Amino acid sequence: MKNLSSLALRYTDGILQLLDQHRLPAEENWLPCESPESVIGHIRALRVRGAPLIGVSAALSLADYAERGASREQFDRAAEALRAARPTAVNLMICIDRMKVSALESTYSVDAIVKAAESIFDEDVALCRRMGDFGAGLIGDGESVLTHCNTGGLATAGIGTALGVIRRAHEQGKKIHVFVDETRPLLQGGRLTAWELERLGVPYTLICDNMAGSLMREGRIARVIVGADRIAMNGDFANKVGTYGVAALARFHEVPFHVTAPYTTIDPECASGREIPIEQRSADEIRGVSGSFGQVIWSPADARVHNPAFDVSPGELVTSYILDRGIFAPSAIADALNSK
Amino acid sequence: MKNLSSLALRYTDGILQLLDQHRLPAEENWLPCESPESVIGHIRALRVRGAPLIGVSAALSLADYAERGASREQFDRAAEALRAARPTAVNLMICIDRMKVSALESTYSVDAIVKAAESIFDEDVALCRRMGDFGAGLIGDGESVLTHCNTGGLATAGIGTALGVIRRAHEQGKKIHVFVDETRPLLQGGRLTAWELERLGVPYTLICDNMAGSLMREGRIARVIVGADRIAMNGDFANKVGTYGVAALARFHEVPFHVTAPYTTIDPECASGREIPIEQRSADEIRGVSGSFGQVIWSPADARVHNPAFDVSPGELVTSYILDRGIFAPSAIADALNSK
Repeated sequence: MKNLSSLALRYTDGILQLLDQHRLPAEENWLPCESPESVIGHIRALRVRGAPLIGVSAALSLADYAERGASREQFDRAAEALRAARPTAVNLMICIDRMKVSALESTYSVDAIVKAAESIFDEDVALCRRMGDFGAGLIGDGESVLTHCNTGGLATAGIGTALGVIRRAHEQGKKIHVFVDETRPLLQGGRLTAWELERLGVPYTLICDNMAGSLMREGRIARVIVGADRIAMNGDFANKVGTYGVAALARFHEVPFHVTAPYTTIDPECASGREIPIEQRSADEIRGVSGSFGQVIWSPADARVHNPAFDVSPGELVTSYILDRGIFAPSAIADALNSK
Repeated sequence: MKNLSSLALRYTDGILQLLDQHRLPAEENWLPCESPESVIGHIRALRVRGAPLIGVSAALSLADYAERGASREQFDRAAEALRAARPTAVNLMICIDRMKVSALESTYSVDAIVKAAESIFDEDVALCRRMGDFGAGLIGDGESVLTHCNTGGLATAGIGTALGVIRRAHEQGKKIHVFVDETRPLLQGGRLTAWELERLGVPYTLICDNMAGSLMREGRIARVIVGADRIAMNGDFANKVGTYGVAALARFHEVPFHVTAPYTTIDPECASGREIPIEQRSADEIRGVSGSFGQVIWSPADARVHNPAFDVSPGELVTSYILDRGIFAPSAIADALNSK
């Protein structure tokens, strides 16, 4: 496989490495991934995260496995295990399915499998660029934009989805300001989005998730831009927990609310948000925090918690979808999928 | 002064002690308070917190100071300093003003000052009981109630405001369940409300603040009950940051939203929420967490943050006020104040 490199993933001289996103921003530590199993472990632990990046990482890991001599049966078993590593994000499943098709159609030609993985990587970079250009056109000079979770270079092979749009607007010279939800429980906003925006020199202010409402009421948020983990055919979508609350608050305050995602996030098999499975995660994530910065538990040790990794928002709360094919109304998701 | 005791404050044999709420729930550590200055330090650091409890603690500290032989001038200076220790909660100012009046009217009789402090304590206990009884009547059997921050025995001299209502409903045998917002940044929900509910045996589930919206959408929240730090004459109120977002989400989902407070939280000088000053707190509270459980910073070290301690919600989002005088519409706050 050719050498490939992005902010959080690199394949160099036959070694696949993932940036450990648990350790950011305190440490930049790269994890060598010698097998699909190690990638599965990193996906489950959220050391690699972001719906597009998970899919790309899984595809590269499968191609690497084939190059290292995995049998057809081993390849298929690894593909199934990778596909099941996280239930909500659909990009992973779509990428794995493309890898399986390449293996099937080529009667397991390693060359064809490698080409499929390379094209998944290259395509993700191009998709990000297109979303960035379409979305940046929506952002006015001087606007303050609120975002939730991390949707930048750490979440994709390219410049990102929602954060890629923000980055492109900044690069176009628009004087924008970003309000960053810290995004409890895993703090992808406070750790990762803040880190990316520092690197990019984009002005930002970090807030607790519960402060977004009053900023909207004060008229300090011009629009909200978030990513998605799965988009249903009726325009509903799943994204990091807390997104629904932001969407409802945006509607209540008449603030435009945009969802940015590549077409690979649209699930043609999924009619509505009700069909999207939501992963429940460990109680300790709510009882405290942990990461390279340390681990502390502040609640009563056995506190009962509710910890869904994602939530689902209805399409009716979405002002527009920023896709790689352009800007679409939530009611036009099927058209978007067919408009390539 | 007679011996007095509540969950987080005690005056025993001439020594005033406050429970260090920074150290809960990991440790129960009592802080001896030998001077008004030490109480001011504890108020500023939020080691003692809760609008009613701050007022009661300040009053007891002043009376103790007078008993220890403070001159009239020292008393007045300490009263002014205590009054300025936190700008948003009005209970502190009202309690201090009552202490000053008792000193003035009695031409600085230590006996009269001590009686005033004792009656502030006893009155707070009685006010909590009345709010609890009025409010519990609103809660139906089997309801799930969402609350924000801590408004229980740790926040008052009695059973609490919003949490006192919940406690009374539980004591009446109603099978209620409490969803507890963790309440970033200082985690009064995750640390203090969870701790109180454990002690009381009230079933609860701890959530991150950003999960309340989707629980409302799923129909899992029957009503919201919160406290207040200051109520304006037009029905607007200030409370712990994040309250406004909950109020807006409750309205968006048509979930009843109640504010529980004693009459001492109503500020007759304050015409509307626009006049309530909001304290900005330290950036490190947003960059990470700290307490007896440890201290960790997860964001870039110099991340710019927005950290208001409180937010203001308009009266129009309040279904009803649960006061010690009964249940009132937000438009009837002036009537409530005059209805003693």
